[in-house]
Amino acid sequence: MYQLNTNYDKLPGSYLFAAIAKKIAAYQKEHPAADVIRLGIGDVTRPLAPAVVAAMHRAVDEMADAATFRGYGPEQGYDFLRDAIIRGEYTSRGVEIDRDEIFVSDGSKCDVANIQELFSPECSFAIGDPVYPVYLDSNVMAGRTGELLADGRFARVTYLPATEENRFSPALPAEPVDLIYLCSPNNPTGTALTRQELAVWIEYARKTGAVILYDSAYSAYIAEPDCPGSIYELPGAKEVAIEFKSFSKTAGFTGVRCAFTVVPKALAGGKLNAMWNRRQCTKFNGVNYVVQRAAEAVYGEAGRQEIRRTIGYYMENARIIREGLSSAGFTVYGGVNAPYLWWSLTKNVKSFDFFDRLLNVCQVVGTPGSGFGPHGEGFFRLTAFGNREQTSEAVERIKRNAGQLLG
Amino acid sequence: MYQLNTNYDKLPGSYLFAAIAKKIAAYQKEHPAADVIRLGIGDVTRPLAPAVVAAMHRAVDEMADAATFRGYGPEQGYDFLRDAIIRGEYTSRGVEIDRDEIFVSDGSKCDVANIQELFSPECSFAIGDPVYPVYLDSNVMAGRTGELLADGRFARVTYLPATEENRFSPALPAEPVDLIYLCSPNNPTGTALTRQELAVWIEYARKTGAVILYDSAYSAYIAEPDCPGSIYELPGAKEVAIEFKSFSKTAGFTGVRCAFTVVPKALAGGKLNAMWNRRQCTKFNGVNYVVQRAAEAVYGEAGRQEIRRTIGYYMENARIIREGLSSAGFTVYGGVNAPYLWWSLTKNVKSFDFFDRLLNVCQVVGTPGSGFGPHGEGFFRLTAFGNREQTSEAVERIKRNAGQLLG
Repeated sequence: MYQLNTNYDKLPGSYLFAAIAKKIAAYQKEHPAADVIRLGIGDVTRPLAPAVVAAMHRAVDEMADAATFRGYGPEQGYDFLRDAIIRGEYTSRGVEIDRDEIFVSDGSKCDVANIQELFSPECSFAIGDPVYPVYLDSNVMAGRTGELLADGRFARVTYLPATEENRFSPALPAEPVDLIYLCSPNNPTGTALTRQELAVWIEYARKTGAVILYDSAYSAYIAEPDCPGSIYELPGAKEVAIEFKSFSKTAGFTGVRCAFTVVPKALAGGKLNAMWNRRQCTKFNGVNYVVQRAAEAVYGEAGRQEIRRTIGYYMENARIIREGLSSAGFTVYGGVNAPYLWWSLTKNVKSFDFFDRLLNVCQVVGTPGSGFGPHGEGFFRLTAFGNREQTSEAVERIKRNAGQLLG
Repeated sequence: MYQLNTNYDKLPGSYLFAAIAKKIAAYQKEHPAADVIRLGIGDVTRPLAPAVVAAMHRAVDEMADAATFRGYGPEQGYDFLRDAIIRGEYTSRGVEIDRDEIFVSDGSKCDVANIQELFSPECSFAIGDPVYPVYLDSNVMAGRTGELLADGRFARVTYLPATEENRFSPALPAEPVDLIYLCSPNNPTGTALTRQELAVWIEYARKTGAVILYDSAYSAYIAEPDCPGSIYELPGAKEVAIEFKSFSKTAGFTGVRCAFTVVPKALAGGKLNAMWNRRQCTKFNGVNYVVQRAAEAVYGEAGRQEIRRTIGYYMENARIIREGLSSAGFTVYGGVNAPYLWWSLTKNVKSFDFFDRLLNVCQVVGTPGSGFGPHGEGFFRLTAFGNREQTSEAVERIKRNAGQLLG
């Protein structure tokens, strides 16, 4: 008789965003006339860039003709896209990356969840607190943690608190760890590590023999020059870091599905690069051809300009939220180098209760901070990915009801 | 200091098809003028169906307009596609499947590789020999096997020999196993299990408490009425079987990437359905919207007809290969319910040597049988997915050089 993977039993019932989607659906069923504004899940709303759309139509036409039809592509991605990524993301930042260090995939979520397979089940790991839940959940499933404790933490996990006190830039762990998940610009706090802060992590990893798993899915939103757009801008990073980047937020590809992971050959003497290649060749079958042409167009001249405009649109939303909430007496972080606003709630309200309150009072959806980790309690994430009118309307509702929300 | 997953060290250097691609590239570099015909990797060559192409263009246009743009879709797939799958694959076969039992993904390769995560690392498993290498390799990576032995087998794996003697329909395992991978129609032997043969497996699984992982990616090619197109056509299957189906070979989606997996709620009291849902929500982010509209179009009236014609085209190729090789004095199996031909080589030639011989003598590429398992030695797989002219030309070359090939 087969046995199941009992590590799944350690996880709370459902994935954070799935649980929230259910709550919203229930509210809308009860209040069918309510004009609910969703600033919860980090999902884009602007259409694809015209250059991307044109590239997709062209590629679909290629798939309609036997002479230009494409079947299986390389598991690692087509050379045309890997080369465009090198030029657009790395050469432009003065970083040298080889083609065979780039692995195109259908999403950073998959890659950051799968990367732990390359390491021993015995490896210890550190995650930010709060942070995107996939790092933790994928390791729970793989058996690298103990049970969920009463304080909301899992045993055998090193949490790195990101708090108002440390300006959401976690300190080095007290105990040694093997794998370090860093997310910058950070989801959910909306803050980005500076060059100086990142250098401390690289030095630490080099000294202690740790690997940094660097999730940089939001790097296109960085505005301040002292926050690097790639960890490889820093010397010594290639020997200790794997970098994840995505087209989801860069180019509105959340429904298109394309991302890439860089596994430098300088890491573990090339071993991790070879292992990830083997993993992708065995358990993955490459990304849709049309999608890869779409991603290539992101780096074309027209694509780059169009995408800049869309990012500007979202960051103007971020400014509206930040300034609106501040003017209403709230404390809010982020929104400068990231499309996320991290709203500090009054001390006596739980973030999941605030979710209900905000939905009921303002018909605005956000994400409870505690969903991202115990140190997210007392915070609430809003995203700048809505459309302008709804974002402004949401801010007005919040301002109008500030007293009731603060209560 | 981090430790790597040492199970990867047990695997041979490279994934079968990646290794073969390298061999071909080397040959072509040495013989730039050679007209190499590829009947090796199971990749389609016909363009997408017009109904599919039209659906993709429409969906791309939706993505270009804020009013119809789609961001993240459901991790399990859009309802429109899940419902089309139910109608097109199950209701049509008299099988009742619920929407929440269907999980749309970017490929059966991913799903059959990932499904083992739901089971304890202690589970034993059985695979056909020969068979598609992903079942084995994904379990090697997960640590469910011992080392690779001198005879080409891994320790702690139950191999189910598919031989000329048993008409490529493996017997039940001698020892009890927890997980049973069945592939029908079979890759690489090209044979499909009959209703009666499949019933034996279901009864065995029910009696011994095993789970059948039923890879039915080639079911659209079944021509003989006594071979079921879904395992759920058989009574009692829902309590013991997970079924994998793909649009790759059904509709030429190898470069488009869409598949689905059925995890019945009747299995393990609903536990496996809930676990797969949790897995997909945590480690996967849904399939491209354009692709899901494309897959939906496969089940429309026009799509269905167009796809039938393409399948007919490939199966005519299969007939040409089968009859051509037979007339030249070779023994060849398959090609009736599957687009694969399983060529029985003369006893004294190794299939990897025959790969080189066929490439050198005929400039035809196939796949060495031993790449699919020890019992694949002495066989060679050809696919019917080429274009008509090249397929006919390949058969002519083989017939012309039969003496030299037999030698």
